[in-house]
Amino acid sequence: MNINDYAKLYRDNLLNDVIPFWLRYSEDKEFGGFFTCLDKNGNVYDKDKFVWLQCREVWCFAMLYNQVEKRQSWLDFAIQGAEFLIKHGRDSIGNWYFSLTREGEPIIEPYNIFSDCFAAMAFGQLYQATNNKEYSDIAINTFQNILKRQDNPKGRFSKSYPGIRSLKGFALPMILCNLVLEMENLLEPELVKSTINKGINSVMNTFYEPESGLILENVTLGGGFSDSFEGRLLNPGHGIEAMWFIMDLAKRLKDDDLIKKAVNTTINILERSWDDEYGGVFYFLDIKGYPLLQLEWDQKLWWVHIETIISLLKGYNLTGDERCWRWFEKVHEYTWKHFPDPQNGEWFGYLNRQGEVLLPVKGGKWKGCFHVPRGLFQSWKTLEEIDKKQKSITNMVKES
Amino acid sequence: MNINDYAKLYRDNLLNDVIPFWLRYSEDKEFGGFFTCLDKNGNVYDKDKFVWLQCREVWCFAMLYNQVEKRQSWLDFAIQGAEFLIKHGRDSIGNWYFSLTREGEPIIEPYNIFSDCFAAMAFGQLYQATNNKEYSDIAINTFQNILKRQDNPKGRFSKSYPGIRSLKGFALPMILCNLVLEMENLLEPELVKSTINKGINSVMNTFYEPESGLILENVTLGGGFSDSFEGRLLNPGHGIEAMWFIMDLAKRLKDDDLIKKAVNTTINILERSWDDEYGGVFYFLDIKGYPLLQLEWDQKLWWVHIETIISLLKGYNLTGDERCWRWFEKVHEYTWKHFPDPQNGEWFGYLNRQGEVLLPVKGGKWKGCFHVPRGLFQSWKTLEEIDKKQKSITNMVKES
Repeated sequence: MNINDYAKLYRDNLLNDVIPFWLRYSEDKEFGGFFTCLDKNGNVYDKDKFVWLQCREVWCFAMLYNQVEKRQSWLDFAIQGAEFLIKHGRDSIGNWYFSLTREGEPIIEPYNIFSDCFAAMAFGQLYQATNNKEYSDIAINTFQNILKRQDNPKGRFSKSYPGIRSLKGFALPMILCNLVLEMENLLEPELVKSTINKGINSVMNTFYEPESGLILENVTLGGGFSDSFEGRLLNPGHGIEAMWFIMDLAKRLKDDDLIKKAVNTTINILERSWDDEYGGVFYFLDIKGYPLLQLEWDQKLWWVHIETIISLLKGYNLTGDERCWRWFEKVHEYTWKHFPDPQNGEWFGYLNRQGEVLLPVKGGKWKGCFHVPRGLFQSWKTLEEIDKKQKSITNMVKES
Repeated sequence: MNINDYAKLYRDNLLNDVIPFWLRYSEDKEFGGFFTCLDKNGNVYDKDKFVWLQCREVWCFAMLYNQVEKRQSWLDFAIQGAEFLIKHGRDSIGNWYFSLTREGEPIIEPYNIFSDCFAAMAFGQLYQATNNKEYSDIAINTFQNILKRQDNPKGRFSKSYPGIRSLKGFALPMILCNLVLEMENLLEPELVKSTINKGINSVMNTFYEPESGLILENVTLGGGFSDSFEGRLLNPGHGIEAMWFIMDLAKRLKDDDLIKKAVNTTINILERSWDDEYGGVFYFLDIKGYPLLQLEWDQKLWWVHIETIISLLKGYNLTGDERCWRWFEKVHEYTWKHFPDPQNGEWFGYLNRQGEVLLPVKGGKWKGCFHVPRGLFQSWKTLEEIDKKQKSITNMVKES
């Protein structure tokens, strides 16, 4: 396959398979919002609405409208999801619930700040598509609320006894690195700048572990290593995903050293977490090689693999590092052999270590319309850039 | 193998392998209490102390002292664990923390009422061994506190929005059925009687689902079926374990119908949850056959299998139902082929669906010195009873 074939594959899977799947099966035409618990064939097997997946689907269709094509059906789809969220998604002080019934009643309290992160992302993207000020207000207020809550994101739901082993997690600083670019047009330039600097510092200094060149999932409040289950935990997919957020920021800052560090970190994580026996990237590892608490540690998850593809393609595009391309071919081959379901549409999400489908679902409580379409879009566009660069080099060679 | 061979196997594994393993590797001689995070060889790979596992190990050694033999080393082992717990285990109002550092500082707040359940069980058993009033006071106060908390066991840590989908879980009523017999000598007869009646009613009416003959893991507050992920959940090991608690109660009450219902339920659950392809009992299932949230659903866990063996042996002993014996032979064969590690001692805890060791540990955050020794003890003693009965029948036949 040449670059063009790859680009076409990612584009076609996005536009002719994945997006039609969600358009066809996920809309709740009676109460608004989306069903995300879809089985192999797209049948709804549970009607609960998980706020972060509702937000992610709004974001996805608004993003496609903004970036790919001004299709009214995509925008309408996003707007109906957003209106459901506006009506039902928040408590009285603006925190986003974790889950709702089909009808919109709250089931699970706002214990999870990632509901808020994806709400800000969704309404920010939808504002770009509509110029509707209500959407930008929600995005901005939610973003401000996240910053307010960021040092104690779980609030009253935190089970940690104060002051003994207080750890901070990687996920929030990582997501802020992406969210700040998503919302750049809505935020004060100074806030954008400081959030970017803080985010890069957090990811590439605090959570980056220099001896191994890997990313830790949890560190002490002072940024140190905690020799505990949580402190030893590696979440390879998280680390690799963060590296393309960092590459996007580094490209914007024209910081070549940071780009190189992000590429090296991607390769380090991949070398540590690739399963030489069955292929695929492990879900969790322990940095010391100790036994884990996560019984699902050896499973192969869709998002880990598509995020890895994005980081490798961006790394290759930005640096030409051949390791990125070799790894891309390997991860691409594993991914396309195991996850997509061309017969019924979309991708399987959960494979066992051996690569067999563990749960025959296209969506659930944690998988929705997000990583697959975002990853296909990012890969398609990055492959086009790589193709363009290679063609211009070929032309220069011909001309000289 | 005849009954006697089986009895000897369970007894020998308990006294010559499992108990020496914990005696040798788990004591923290510096700070007191026990290490439970032990790798394949008994090496400590993490030093955190999980309160319910501390309590379970105290209970186990006190129980052996009370039931098997008055070995001082067993009692001393239990007492040193109990003294660590007295010093460090509770918050200011007597709730038991979930976990402590090696030194005894609290890490995780008392969000989990099962810490309290196993504390009551441990101190009750230890009082029987020592007649130390401090231990009985702790057991009684903790039991009273559990009853006080039982309708809202998670307290402030509950993430459910009130009144929309409030469910109650099976684990607490199930454990109370066992705990009440453990503590019978410490409680008012009226309280014992009412707790038993409430427990049986809860397990065999509220959580028992008559159409399928299975046990639900969560039901609505009114005792109805909830068509949600939680409501559809089956935890076969839990259901089967509860059946031997019920058989113990039914035997005491001389209620033959209840014994039969518990035996039938054991068989129903086993027929539903046995993996015909690879053998073993699945960890989780959905009563409607829908996809689950639990990524570990198809794994084979040690406690599920040893608890199943107990219920089958008790069922056979109490009823002579041949289905119990046939299933016992099948589950025994799978269990002894896959879990015990005669080379290094104790049992592996976590196998993948195929029966391969998934995590090479003998203990961790959830596995300690409890299900294996309790199950070996219960099986040994029940097999002895079966043997005695069969011999007396043979003698009667000879005599007549």
